[in-house]
Amino acid sequence: MTVTITAFERSPDGGKGLARDTRVRWALEEAGIPFEVRHVSFAAMKEPAHLALHPFGQIPTYEEGDLVLFESGAIVFHIASRHAGLLPDDPSARARAITWLFAALNTVEPPILELSTAKILEGDKPWSEARMPLVKDRVRARLAQLSAHLGDADWLDGAFSAGDLMMVSVLLRSRPSGILDEYPNLSAYVARGEARPAYKRAYEAQLRDAIAAGSPG
Amino acid sequence: MTVTITAFERSPDGGKGLARDTRVRWALEEAGIPFEVRHVSFAAMKEPAHLALHPFGQIPTYEEGDLVLFESGAIVFHIASRHAGLLPDDPSARARAITWLFAALNTVEPPILELSTAKILEGDKPWSEARMPLVKDRVRARLAQLSAHLGDADWLDGAFSAGDLMMVSVLLRSRPSGILDEYPNLSAYVARGEARPAYKRAYEAQLRDAIAAGSPG
Repeated sequence: MTVTITAFERSPDGGKGLARDTRVRWALEEAGIPFEVRHVSFAAMKEPAHLALHPFGQIPTYEEGDLVLFESGAIVFHIASRHAGLLPDDPSARARAITWLFAALNTVEPPILELSTAKILEGDKPWSEARMPLVKDRVRARLAQLSAHLGDADWLDGAFSAGDLMMVSVLLRSRPSGILDEYPNLSAYVARGEARPAYKRAYEAQLRDAIAAGSPG
Repeated sequence: MTVTITAFERSPDGGKGLARDTRVRWALEEAGIPFEVRHVSFAAMKEPAHLALHPFGQIPTYEEGDLVLFESGAIVFHIASRHAGLLPDDPSARARAITWLFAALNTVEPPILELSTAKILEGDKPWSEARMPLVKDRVRARLAQLSAHLGDADWLDGAFSAGDLMMVSVLLRSRPSGILDEYPNLSAYVARGEARPAYKRAYEAQLRDAIAAGSPG
């Protein structure tokens, strides 16, 4: 059955791989599932046809026959639960890998997203400069805890899993601020994710799309 | 096997049911699983014994024999995937219910959490008053989309699921601001959640704990 995902027609990051379609492409590449990408403009994302797929008017969506999913976490979980390689077979190890998937999205990503919001949506506000250190320190608080937990392990809990895929994807969004580099073990962890052939294919495909759409690349 | 969860020794909300243990208690009550609650002080949450269970030093955690989980989303999913009543059997309906679980946590909760942060951690800052309308409008943007999607349905996708349990839990956190009441169908949706016997048991238990700990109740 053909799998189709949606991605930005012109990614706001110009092809840095930080948009949420990259994590879904990565999971599909890890699982070895061929897929098509439909690009959606910012205007089309808010129109009824796209809202019927994604009630919050975002990307990515995932279509597989009659099944329509949205939310990168749900899509990655769907892929991981149906194909080998992204979740351990042992029930306890599997539950822990899923825990890291949720932790990436609900504990680590929110302060990183707040930092993006502070820059993009509030960068021109009179409070922007004074407030920024607080917002950055909230990212640091989470990254310090994650760094302490990871220690010198390669991955968060045993073998590479969907939890690592999501955590690396989320951490990548903290790199432009320079904060990721303050934690050498997290920086190395992200680099291990980026070195995976499946990640490289995902990254390169979204970059090609960004260049084709006229983004800086 | 005994299930033990952790909760605040003194919940910051004084027993309003907004702390993240309530959603886990609710899921356990829906599934009919007996459980014990271990209360943790703010100081103990940051100590090695608790950090070994929860790397981010928060509550709730979930212990079942040797299995230790954290993240309310992961715990609710773990319960829902192993007991009847919280996820549909049909694979597509199940994937969609899981999508709503992730949407509650990664799309709807973050702006609501930002509003709490703006009040609690930045309420005394010079920018607080000028910034608040922006933060509130971000919550409204999400709630308006969710309200449009829900329409006059009882639940998000067919029968009540773990996705609804989490969405109701997340929306409850927007009620103190008054924003939830601006969307009558979401307000009614939350009320339907609160009317469930399992929710009532969960709410009452956490309230009893808050009163026993000397919180206002």
